Amino acid sequence: MYGMIVMSSTKSYLEMTNAERRAELKVQQRLYEAQKAEGNNLDMCRGKPDATQLNLSMDMLQQNPYDLIYTRKGTDVRNYGELAGADEAKELFADLLGLKMENIIMGGQSSLALMYDMVIKACVLGVYGGSKPWLQQGTIHFLCPVPGYDRHFRITEEFGIDMINVPMSPTGPDMEMVRQYVENDPSVKGIWCVPKYSNPQGYTYSPETVEAFAALKPAADDFRIFWDNAYYVHGFRETDDYLLNIFDACKKYGSEDMVYEFMSTSKVTFAGAGVAVFAASPHNIQFLTQQLSVQTLGYDKINQMRHVKYFKNVEGLRKHMRKQANYLRPKFDCLLAGLQSGLGTAKIGSWTNPNGGYFVSYDGLPGTARRCVQLCADAGVKMTSPGSCFPYGIDPEDKNIRLAPSYPSTAELYKSMNIFSTCQKIAALEMLLGQDKAES
Amino acid sequence: MYGMIVMSSTKSYLEMTNAERRAELKVQQRLYEAQKAEGNNLDMCRGKPDATQLNLSMDMLQQNPYDLIYTRKGTDVRNYGELAGADEAKELFADLLGLKMENIIMGGQSSLALMYDMVIKACVLGVYGGSKPWLQQGTIHFLCPVPGYDRHFRITEEFGIDMINVPMSPTGPDMEMVRQYVENDPSVKGIWCVPKYSNPQGYTYSPETVEAFAALKPAADDFRIFWDNAYYVHGFRETDDYLLNIFDACKKYGSEDMVYEFMSTSKVTFAGAGVAVFAASPHNIQFLTQQLSVQTLGYDKINQMRHVKYFKNVEGLRKHMRKQANYLRPKFDCLLAGLQSGLGTAKIGSWTNPNGGYFVSYDGLPGTARRCVQLCADAGVKMTSPGSCFPYGIDPEDKNIRLAPSYPSTAELYKSMNIFSTCQKIAALEMLLGQDKAES
Repeated sequence: MYGMIVMSSTKSYLEMTNAERRAELKVQQRLYEAQKAEGNNLDMCRGKPDATQLNLSMDMLQQNPYDLIYTRKGTDVRNYGELAGADEAKELFADLLGLKMENIIMGGQSSLALMYDMVIKACVLGVYGGSKPWLQQGTIHFLCPVPGYDRHFRITEEFGIDMINVPMSPTGPDMEMVRQYVENDPSVKGIWCVPKYSNPQGYTYSPETVEAFAALKPAADDFRIFWDNAYYVHGFRETDDYLLNIFDACKKYGSEDMVYEFMSTSKVTFAGAGVAVFAASPHNIQFLTQQLSVQTLGYDKINQMRHVKYFKNVEGLRKHMRKQANYLRPKFDCLLAGLQSGLGTAKIGSWTNPNGGYFVSYDGLPGTARRCVQLCADAGVKMTSPGSCFPYGIDPEDKNIRLAPSYPSTAELYKSMNIFSTCQKIAALEMLLGQDKAES
Repeated sequence: MYGMIVMSSTKSYLEMTNAERRAELKVQQRLYEAQKAEGNNLDMCRGKPDATQLNLSMDMLQQNPYDLIYTRKGTDVRNYGELAGADEAKELFADLLGLKMENIIMGGQSSLALMYDMVIKACVLGVYGGSKPWLQQGTIHFLCPVPGYDRHFRITEEFGIDMINVPMSPTGPDMEMVRQYVENDPSVKGIWCVPKYSNPQGYTYSPETVEAFAALKPAADDFRIFWDNAYYVHGFRETDDYLLNIFDACKKYGSEDMVYEFMSTSKVTFAGAGVAVFAASPHNIQFLTQQLSVQTLGYDKINQMRHVKYFKNVEGLRKHMRKQANYLRPKFDCLLAGLQSGLGTAKIGSWTNPNGGYFVSYDGLPGTARRCVQLCADAGVKMTSPGSCFPYGIDPEDKNIRLAPSYPSTAELYKSMNIFSTCQKIAALEMLLGQDKAES
């Protein structure tokens, strides 16, 4: 495509006549064929760090191991014991989340595995204060703010828990709808939330939204908010979004037992070898520690100590995250520039511009996402599977595409966004022309 | 007690007259009071390595981290991916167990957590080839060779799975009883096995026993043998017991799908930070990898690479285990010498003399274990809770006590065995005198 002059329109596709659209489609198709001929092999769907970003944490692995093996109270972390984790690890993450050590259980390296564990145990063993295990209650439901995180939805799908879509806005889920379901239907047992820099939009729940969660009076005695705070320290701009501490909000309502909070260092240190954190009320922690004592003799405490000794404290962790922010920000800026330059005038889609997190959410015209992703794939650009941000993989409007800029290089990102723009345009023009044909 | 002359009998207590027993009881009681007055604080119940033993693996943590991050096929183990583990880790443990890479899923650091996971998933999601999840089949059963590992039994108890005791012998469980249950009762879904250096006896299943397992034709379509090979490389004498590879035995019968094998490096490297291994037939691996893909993006692969690069190969791992053997053997010898010197003549109990593993199993006279453990506790020696090696914590004969020599020093071990011997003698004499009184 380089060196080729493409006379693309500078007019919104929605305002075009069909004749103009047909002409523009031809232009875009020529461009697409040229882009396809380049034989690209690009991948825009992996929400994971690249090697350079991972290198930012290698000093953590360079520590003298003898400095890691004893906790401040003298426990040898190489051995069994300290089921809920090393005290200093619990303290570090409690400090970070605005909680107390007593609110924390340190997990393995995967917060997703902790969530799976909490769901399957609730199914079989029940939750604190619940009268029966979830599985003994017939059909049960989870609320799913959409678009959301595919892996959340796969967990509830695995256990036959019916999922109900709840629309997201820049301030969080539609809380009136959440309240109606949670307060009137005892079969609603949970809701999946990514409250800060949400996956995929990068939205942060407003204080009013968090407060509305805290104020819920569930019809079920075993309802839980799955508060996946995966991107809590993942702001990459000067302005970091503010997230109200849900446990603080809950205090007013005595509703702390309703919240399971999760986080991990998968995108702080190593995606495959970080530490995961579970936070909850003392009632829940006590109940779940009892269950945990049957399951294991404890998670990897050496790795907990590696993290603690490397970060030292919350300020150390935040300082580390600024290195990551400085590395990630240009990737987001490049992606956003590519979108603006490619799609700014056609006005066939909108996208988020987050202050943090790992994704940009793109909404095209309804009915175009699958076609666009297919066109991208044929031109050597792998996009996140359309519908994957929705329960059962079904985007009811077929318009949402998740963009993940962390893994590709900026050169790959810019090229991917060029090709993506062409594919969006073709899909939109085909749809608009087809629609008008059907109408006429 | 030191410097005090104790004129204890050299005659079997069973052959004594009651007058002799009363005299001997007075001698032992005097000794006991003296031992109690020492104010000991000893612990014989922790089946875990001590700090010196853990130090034997510290070189593993001293490796240059940049040597650990790429697998031979170029995967960056710091990142997501390779759900079933790094190839070289799967290969190392496959080689060790006489299997293929395709038989292996690498777990986190706890094989117990893997077992728990397999049981809870079988309960909710079912197993490969099974028509229904276990929980949808009413009352189900597990066979439990006894005495056995308390934490196995706690898992099945947690899920309301009824447990049936099966007697152990030096060649393994009573296989005729196992066969009768497994082949005639479809509610029997599993059996807990520690086939080599069993917990607590240190017995190793004979080739005939392993063959009899392989030949089982379960009445249930979802029966699984939980083959916890926790001590497979844990021989500490010149003679290492031979364990037939159960998967080899199964080939003849086409019964490979019946076996879930587990092991870990908890007692190879670090009890709290090793790696766990799951081995099974390709059918099971495929089925379970699918389930695992919902649960997590993978376990800690850096730690897998730490282990692989440190051991290099099976011979390297076995060489490492010889260091552990040389460290553990004197502890067992000291414990056994203490038992022989303390209890050799009274003939009120028997104990195992294993070639490997972590425990010695002691059987006293029926009806004496609880009393003995209480006497020990009052004299400052903490013993494994009596009954803990049996389902529901109930030793039907109240005679078994598990001895764990790995954690205390040899000085502590010898002193503990002195006190234990006194307590055994008092409990036996009280019982014999009480029994005769009741009879007369």
